[in-house]
Amino acid sequence: MLSKNRTNYIISLQKKKSRENEKLYIVEGDKIVMEYISAGVPIKILAANPVFINSLRGSEKNSIEEIIPTTYEELKKISSLKTPHNALAIVNIPDNITLNNFSGSLCVALDFIQDPGNMGTIIRAAAWFGIKHIICSANCVDAFNPKTVQASMGAILQVNIFYSDLEKTLYIANRQNIPVYGATLDGDSIYETNLSKEGIILLGNESRGISKNISRYVTQKIMIPFFGEKNSFGIESLNVSMAASVIFSEFSRR
Amino acid sequence: MLSKNRTNYIISLQKKKSRENEKLYIVEGDKIVMEYISAGVPIKILAANPVFINSLRGSEKNSIEEIIPTTYEELKKISSLKTPHNALAIVNIPDNITLNNFSGSLCVALDFIQDPGNMGTIIRAAAWFGIKHIICSANCVDAFNPKTVQASMGAILQVNIFYSDLEKTLYIANRQNIPVYGATLDGDSIYETNLSKEGIILLGNESRGISKNISRYVTQKIMIPFFGEKNSFGIESLNVSMAASVIFSEFSRR
Repeated sequence: MLSKNRTNYIISLQKKKSRENEKLYIVEGDKIVMEYISAGVPIKILAANPVFINSLRGSEKNSIEEIIPTTYEELKKISSLKTPHNALAIVNIPDNITLNNFSGSLCVALDFIQDPGNMGTIIRAAAWFGIKHIICSANCVDAFNPKTVQASMGAILQVNIFYSDLEKTLYIANRQNIPVYGATLDGDSIYETNLSKEGIILLGNESRGISKNISRYVTQKIMIPFFGEKNSFGIESLNVSMAASVIFSEFSRR
Repeated sequence: MLSKNRTNYIISLQKKKSRENEKLYIVEGDKIVMEYISAGVPIKILAANPVFINSLRGSEKNSIEEIIPTTYEELKKISSLKTPHNALAIVNIPDNITLNNFSGSLCVALDFIQDPGNMGTIIRAAAWFGIKHIICSANCVDAFNPKTVQASMGAILQVNIFYSDLEKTLYIANRQNIPVYGATLDGDSIYETNLSKEGIILLGNESRGISKNISRYVTQKIMIPFFGEKNSFGIESLNVSMAASVIFSEFSRR
């Protein structure tokens, strides 16, 4: 049974402030929680229905600090979803280290990404295309938001996510002569641009793009050409997470 | 003022059955409705707040059959969103013609896509990459679902969407020697496969992929290679709309 105390504690982690204080985040969903457990990720609290708990092997329970059998009604209370899944886990947020050396690999930098779903799919795409580091401006949505965690489908464990002063970070990159590729609507075609194996791929806000103070650090503007009919109304751009997938694909395949 | 009659009529169009009977669908959102109007798309009903209506030029009003000034509360009632926008339009669904000749262009075929958001982003990606035709299996989510329309961001007007017996359609394609590219997790790398300028790009269900009875019509299995670390847990696949973006990009850039 889930005590009132525990219920409130878990619900509090839906808020960024509490997640930061506790250094914990929520993972929701049978499949994803099961994957965390199978991978041996240390779990602080597992709140799940008894069938789910009984399906765990002894060795799998070892990495779980506290297991709480819960009813559907209890899960509904702590879930951020309309219809709760059978399992919810509380997991440690990794330390927010600073990335100061960009040489030798590709990084993604996000400037004011607001939508948790977009953040999650960008993380998923980065993990798929083998990009290990994601640098987020301080005003990006929290990557450990329950919706982001869900959209990332476990990929959040495969990449390092840094929150930093993006201006300062890109300034350092410029000084180190690391290319900064800015995704815009008026850059060079990504298909025809020379893409390095190291560098920073910078993606901007969903409606405003890359902000002014950040864009000055861009060393190469890139864009995904439009292949539709000219003057087609209504198709201004690709969604940022779709654009991210295409851009990452182009960098990786070369 | 929005009468009770009109309110119920508009709400009814959130249901597929009513949309089919009336051959009408709902477009929500200031920006997208404004784009429909600017493009001269015939609008059956415009329900919007008076500020929005006053911003229209006389010529823009010509393509609107009925204009109803509405309050926030009235918009809230007819909206499928938690927080309504300032404008909602009712628009004709184009006739569902059948596509029987696939030569000369690329088409997308969707096998049991369930999520309206995915459907919308696939439509948006197709429009961006210049793909004009989308053939949907009968069990796909309705493309004129309000959530799909919203996710497509107007791109729904740029592509032809057909609902059909997908087996029959692909059978015809096979007989016409049109390649059918099936997106799978075990196909040939899309980066190394010969991609034709005509053909059908087949995408399967979000969790089950391409169904068995459909997969026999695939003439070339393709996949997006995984570039992450081996045995990375949690990253089984890209989301179907991200995969669609990458695949369409590969076809278009060549």
